[in-house]
Amino acid sequence: MIDLYYYTSPNVRKVLIALEELSLEYRIVWTDIKEGDQFAPEYLEINPNGKVPAVVDHDGPGGEPIAIFETGSILQYLAEKTGRLLPADPRGRQEALCWLFWQVANHGPMAGQAAHFVSHAPKHGIDNPYARSRYVGEVTRLYKVLDNRLRDRDYLAGEYSIADISTYTWTRVAGGHGITVSDYPNLKTWSDRIAARPAAKVKISDSREEAARKNIYNAEQFQRLFRPEGSPA
Amino acid sequence: MIDLYYYTSPNVRKVLIALEELSLEYRIVWTDIKEGDQFAPEYLEINPNGKVPAVVDHDGPGGEPIAIFETGSILQYLAEKTGRLLPADPRGRQEALCWLFWQVANHGPMAGQAAHFVSHAPKHGIDNPYARSRYVGEVTRLYKVLDNRLRDRDYLAGEYSIADISTYTWTRVAGGHGITVSDYPNLKTWSDRIAARPAAKVKISDSREEAARKNIYNAEQFQRLFRPEGSPA
Repeated sequence: MIDLYYYTSPNVRKVLIALEELSLEYRIVWTDIKEGDQFAPEYLEINPNGKVPAVVDHDGPGGEPIAIFETGSILQYLAEKTGRLLPADPRGRQEALCWLFWQVANHGPMAGQAAHFVSHAPKHGIDNPYARSRYVGEVTRLYKVLDNRLRDRDYLAGEYSIADISTYTWTRVAGGHGITVSDYPNLKTWSDRIAARPAAKVKISDSREEAARKNIYNAEQFQRLFRPEGSPA
Repeated sequence: MIDLYYYTSPNVRKVLIALEELSLEYRIVWTDIKEGDQFAPEYLEINPNGKVPAVVDHDGPGGEPIAIFETGSILQYLAEKTGRLLPADPRGRQEALCWLFWQVANHGPMAGQAAHFVSHAPKHGIDNPYARSRYVGEVTRLYKVLDNRLRDRDYLAGEYSIADISTYTWTRVAGGHGITVSDYPNLKTWSDRIAARPAAKVKISDSREEAARKNIYNAEQFQRLFRPEGSPA
């Protein structure tokens, strides 16, 4: 049994889809980041970075529980645990890991910054044209990299892998970070291909899910989520 | 022989230190990101993301060359190639991978954003208090996470690993992203411990290195490096 510390987010959804693809037994542990659940001392034992997701696999190495944080690390763990979603040959595996690291170190963080200045900050009266232009510019570059990569292949590393899952959950919400996926034809085809997989359609049955999807935060929640140590602007 | 596509930067330095630690034979391929070398078609074959570093290991899987990009992926490759710089037991290895992913997905990108608004942008007349506060705030949070993690251990995952190397090269330049390392006593002790290692002191002998260390860009270079698709602010 794997506990998935969950809140509605593209990062958490990576792990959710991987668990579905791998038919692993899991349960959702609702972790309300708006209310600060991620900073509870018992949660920080699992993820010292105070973010979702994290997992606890009760059947870890040696049959003992193991806690894992960071989506890249969780996805690699799940792939290695099952021997799936990563190419078996060393060269293909390395290629998938390059794109996995690319996603978590470039696409994810920069899309997150674009989303802040395109979607979240304006709802709180913050208009910052320089930052918005900087981050939408950078994610535009990254989507061109992706589209180019997918010009002559079905998946980022040849076969469907954790690199695709990691990238897909962010492209799925590209509108929120100022990107129109259909502007990138190869990416659109790839995105539709993944969206058609049953695992990608997974819905969790929790009544709090619908409200969480709206991304509406009051001033205190906004401060907690986006400006953890920030002095007033 | 491993070719390291090199320009002076904390990301490239991760790989340089790892190569030194592992006593691997390598050569520096100077890649002038100020002049756009990273966008040359032959370089994009090696790193489709158009960033430094990348490596080509001429003795890759099956004895054939392999190109690898993204520092996390390169570090993991080098560790697995040599069986060093990652704990051997599965639990320790996963812990090191958690912190490696943490560094490349959090510390690196956010320190990069803080450096932009603290150091680079102001040199070009851009003062953006909201963004500066946001990113210095976030890296302050991340340094607290690090300092807390290092309270009762010598290295991030118990033994010295690629997670430490990855983190060290950015803490080494923390002043540029608005952080004073000595404000974090456990981090300072850890940083001094790594700085004392011969591999961490490596200097490359290229006459262009000194100029590159100054981080001075003209308007065209600034635009190319920091606002790839950006419309005017």
